[in-house]
Amino acid sequence: MLMSSENGQRKKPKILVCNDDGIHAEGLNELAKSMKKIGDVTVVAPLNPQSAMSNAMTLGKPLRIEHVVKNHKLFGYAISGTPVDCVKVGLTHILSSMPDLIVSGINYGSNTAINILYSGTVAAAIEGRISNIPSIAFSLTTYENADFTYAGKFARQLAKKVLKHGLPSRTILSVNIPNVPESEIQGTSITRQGESCWAESMIEHHDPYGQPYYWLNGTMELYDKSLSDDEYAIRHNYVSITPLKYDLTNYSFLETLKSWNIKK
Amino acid sequence: MLMSSENGQRKKPKILVCNDDGIHAEGLNELAKSMKKIGDVTVVAPLNPQSAMSNAMTLGKPLRIEHVVKNHKLFGYAISGTPVDCVKVGLTHILSSMPDLIVSGINYGSNTAINILYSGTVAAAIEGRISNIPSIAFSLTTYENADFTYAGKFARQLAKKVLKHGLPSRTILSVNIPNVPESEIQGTSITRQGESCWAESMIEHHDPYGQPYYWLNGTMELYDKSLSDDEYAIRHNYVSITPLKYDLTNYSFLETLKSWNIKK
Repeated sequence: MLMSSENGQRKKPKILVCNDDGIHAEGLNELAKSMKKIGDVTVVAPLNPQSAMSNAMTLGKPLRIEHVVKNHKLFGYAISGTPVDCVKVGLTHILSSMPDLIVSGINYGSNTAINILYSGTVAAAIEGRISNIPSIAFSLTTYENADFTYAGKFARQLAKKVLKHGLPSRTILSVNIPNVPESEIQGTSITRQGESCWAESMIEHHDPYGQPYYWLNGTMELYDKSLSDDEYAIRHNYVSITPLKYDLTNYSFLETLKSWNIKK
Repeated sequence: MLMSSENGQRKKPKILVCNDDGIHAEGLNELAKSMKKIGDVTVVAPLNPQSAMSNAMTLGKPLRIEHVVKNHKLFGYAISGTPVDCVKVGLTHILSSMPDLIVSGINYGSNTAINILYSGTVAAAIEGRISNIPSIAFSLTTYENADFTYAGKFARQLAKKVLKHGLPSRTILSVNIPNVPESEIQGTSITRQGESCWAESMIEHHDPYGQPYYWLNGTMELYDKSLSDDEYAIRHNYVSITPLKYDLTNYSFLETLKSWNIKK
């Protein structure tokens, strides 16, 4: 794929690839491999897994950058921080100019409904958009027996469309891809962030000294009812594509809130 | 303040107080003190400061709960995790029944515009709302020379209004209070999440072994232009009250995205 540069010449798009599962994750490797077919790729990813880190960034300690080599070539840069840190470091320090696109993933496990808030994969894409770069988050709907082949191919198709059309202000795409053979994919669905939620509990264990410690535990409960809801769509083997905007203002509530007449 | 219970008796509201600056932060103490005047308060806060942790939660290691005593009385519970962990632990393990209200803060430093995404204070309130509890985040607009007196008083007034009116689905309030004497507060403003953003850079230092390490650095640039923008409002000494909804779907873009005709 070629894009027009400022001097009118055609050039390959610059693509920054990141994730939250860390620099050694198979999904990152697949995404980078797929993007190299259409662009000049730079990989910047966390040194350690950073699942459920949301938009967290590192303030209290400095960051380190490691050069990671695979097959005797520089594969990418590992950052000792969060997915958001990776994008910030990538844009301010590693890349010499702004990329045309940022892709994040391919995540192990879906990022639908309430999980969108916790996802480091989605957060990395949002961080890219904050710097005005079109960005997409990709997730595969499984933690085990993952096959990223179709997801990598689909990611490339969508990346080309985003490079062509751009994205609206403050908006990214979050894509969830069922972990089934391509022949079982039913199609694509443009979805909203559904309302499915975790039913949570705490598991109490005791250490060898008799002191309790706790693990958060839960199961995702499906509250969604249509193929236009993200979680419902993936459970029916559709690729779910959700446009997410990080302006959280509840505009429809502003006037009611004014009527509360809150004094200083 | 009294609320009607299921059996028709009047009772004090149950209020969960949390923050992201940690169990020993002055702003948490002030908020708890203020809420005790209207309700039965339980404090659950991070053991260590958790600024900029966003909606991060702890998955890879278990959590510990410490009982924190002040003036020979139980002050609250310190959790070895993030603000979101605190709310999850509080709701699933510490409280015997759901609270009527969750308040988060009072944070050192404003949480306006893009900072809403990074804020652990806001995230704790969102986490409360995910469990269907009306929730409010409070922030003071300074990191130093903080005086939480007026903020604590204002928080109580607003808490009473939220207990009375409730909040819409998936919606919290985020409140930013200027750090000036009450006499200098110009009023309140119902605001949107503004578009002010960080201009960022990386500072490179070297350790004693000659290896580089990096600090993220930046200044908040004001892009907002009216008192109905959060960052602009606080810079003009108004208390800013923003309703935030954690449905990130960009509904206005759904139809355009469908027209892209994305095939599987």
